Amino acid sequence: MSKDLLPKGYQANGIHCGLKKKRKDLSLFYSEKPCGAAAVFTRNVVKAAPVILGQELLRKNKGIRAIVVNSGNANCMTGSQGMKDARAMASAMGKLLGVPKETVLVSSTGIIGELMPVKTVIKGMSKIVTGLSREGLQDAADGIMTTDSFRKISSRVFTVGGRKITITGVAKGAGMVKPDMATMLGYVLTDANISRKALKKALHACVDVSLNAITVDGDMSTNDTLALLANGEAGNVLIADKGKDFDVFRRKLESVCRDLAKMIVKDGEGASKFIEVRVKGAGRKVDAKKIAGAVADSLLVKCAVLGGDPNWGRVASSAGSSGVNFDPGKMEISLDGVIFYTGGKAVAHVNRKKTAVFKKKNVRILVDLHSGKEEAVFYSCDISKKYITLNSYYTT
Amino acid sequence: MSKDLLPKGYQANGIHCGLKKKRKDLSLFYSEKPCGAAAVFTRNVVKAAPVILGQELLRKNKGIRAIVVNSGNANCMTGSQGMKDARAMASAMGKLLGVPKETVLVSSTGIIGELMPVKTVIKGMSKIVTGLSREGLQDAADGIMTTDSFRKISSRVFTVGGRKITITGVAKGAGMVKPDMATMLGYVLTDANISRKALKKALHACVDVSLNAITVDGDMSTNDTLALLANGEAGNVLIADKGKDFDVFRRKLESVCRDLAKMIVKDGEGASKFIEVRVKGAGRKVDAKKIAGAVADSLLVKCAVLGGDPNWGRVASSAGSSGVNFDPGKMEISLDGVIFYTGGKAVAHVNRKKTAVFKKKNVRILVDLHSGKEEAVFYSCDISKKYITLNSYYTT
Repeated sequence: MSKDLLPKGYQANGIHCGLKKKRKDLSLFYSEKPCGAAAVFTRNVVKAAPVILGQELLRKNKGIRAIVVNSGNANCMTGSQGMKDARAMASAMGKLLGVPKETVLVSSTGIIGELMPVKTVIKGMSKIVTGLSREGLQDAADGIMTTDSFRKISSRVFTVGGRKITITGVAKGAGMVKPDMATMLGYVLTDANISRKALKKALHACVDVSLNAITVDGDMSTNDTLALLANGEAGNVLIADKGKDFDVFRRKLESVCRDLAKMIVKDGEGASKFIEVRVKGAGRKVDAKKIAGAVADSLLVKCAVLGGDPNWGRVASSAGSSGVNFDPGKMEISLDGVIFYTGGKAVAHVNRKKTAVFKKKNVRILVDLHSGKEEAVFYSCDISKKYITLNSYYTT
Repeated sequence: MSKDLLPKGYQANGIHCGLKKKRKDLSLFYSEKPCGAAAVFTRNVVKAAPVILGQELLRKNKGIRAIVVNSGNANCMTGSQGMKDARAMASAMGKLLGVPKETVLVSSTGIIGELMPVKTVIKGMSKIVTGLSREGLQDAADGIMTTDSFRKISSRVFTVGGRKITITGVAKGAGMVKPDMATMLGYVLTDANISRKALKKALHACVDVSLNAITVDGDMSTNDTLALLANGEAGNVLIADKGKDFDVFRRKLESVCRDLAKMIVKDGEGASKFIEVRVKGAGRKVDAKKIAGAVADSLLVKCAVLGGDPNWGRVASSAGSSGVNFDPGKMEISLDGVIFYTGGKAVAHVNRKKTAVFKKKNVRILVDLHSGKEEAVFYSCDISKKYITLNSYYTT
């Protein structure tokens, strides 16, 4: 992998420190200069210690220099000891890097309710700092994974006022992924010179159509974190929170987030097929999104996709139970481009059992309400027996 | 089965008319006198034709004489032809029984989007009417089943003012069962003499703590119907909508509905374990119910129960993502009577891997918020690979 993937002024590394048996379990993202930062955290009432600490850090706004992430332990529901442990991690990393502890963001993922083996983590820290490099991105992307089956990295390079800007993101997903704040962990680094207000605005706009528009099993984690850092090393004229340059930045950030979101869904625990649910013709965007989310989240729809059965009645039923009021008589349902229901009745000449619909790796569900101009897209995956096995007989 | 199960003045029957290959697919409940009626229908925006017709009938309030139910075809998303078909069913049955068509309630369950084979159904009607009897309840309970593995009947006999009153209910459930209006089909018959207002009030009170408090897969059907009929044949002094007699009636009705709800959950598609989720110590009842519903609905919790793993972190996480704001530090989580989390941290001496928790057929999850006096209970079941198979590779 080209070192170009890491934006200017960043280094990274990922190692095995001993929280997990064999796989990498500690990652570090480091910026040579303080970064402006924006972040979105889980909306779960039960928040892990590092999430609480991260929110505190972002409010203090002292510039971020490093993100240290462990997998194998969530440091969640661990009470005051958990908060101490998260602070100890920030503090130890700050010392090693020679930066204030208030500039070190901590993230954790793994089992809930067990105390963090802080000594193990801190012991790993000197090793991870020593190994920091411009080539460490893949290792860092590996260290944040839990049941993920492949690493998730996406990058875009573009120019603003003649200066080359890079945006690179890594993420982990797999199970416990839900419409609200879908990635468990995601870190996006850029060398753009951009105001903090613009950073925040761009992140929130992108999350809504990417990581908040995916679902694997309808559960929402206690540790979800998406952080965006910008260190200004590209040397471009400052990007403000509106205008052409902002729009370019937002679009590129959105591509990166959308890539990561799709990778998370494709790597859904036990998933074999990727589902795109598009709802159009809605009167309000929020309604389109609610319906798309309900269809994407429906177990029966996921089962139909797994079985390769274009059971459009389940699409209709889940749309109807979304809580949004609409006229079912105007609704049109297409699966993989084939119209199954329109004008208040089933399309008679389509033989459901003989179509090629839902047979491929990527399937498309389109619900047109014919009642307005708004639309929304949700990404989902099928559910399989492997999901059940992964989540029943193994402690994750 | 004793004929006592059917309240006075009712007859029933269930036959195979040809909508399904072999199993019974047509049921009839008949009252010799007009009944007062109350009913609850699905809140899905997409409503089957018989549901729309049923709502119309209840509004007309001409007294119900019969309920005819077919399985094998939902008559849903079938447009104006579907409405004609539902009316034709009521009309044909009315003629055969010699009662006005406005007194015949029609229900359907089965595949969505295919036109009802009305001729087949109407042909079966003469046979089913001929066979009506005081002993036909079991057959009628069988005729409404789809993927149910056992018939669901519950009955209570009690006295009001020295008169014997019977309340008997039948239901079908299996998949597609959700917190809101959970039974797909349920019919409760009583010979009580009770005002229509009291009937309505009692039904709504009971549904909230029974059939609206269960979940199998989070999907809500387009055909859900629960109807309660009372023909007054017990000859008791009229039960009004308050007072001691009303309370007795409501309690007995609640027992019947709760029995049916539990049977539906126990017979959830592919389910192997029954889960009771109780949330107490909430400030508001609606919050307790929301949290209980979120825990009961969580795929990860269901998987943990299937695997016999007391993963209380998943309980905490699903409670926290219910949308209700509470203090996780005050929360206490017990599984099968063993406290796993209290006072802001995990109970140290409980070895999660060595407990007998979640190993039995019936498991209990208790979340105490320690923030008030309100509580709520939800019933659920685990999810298994069989659920996936049933809903993927077969058209239901």
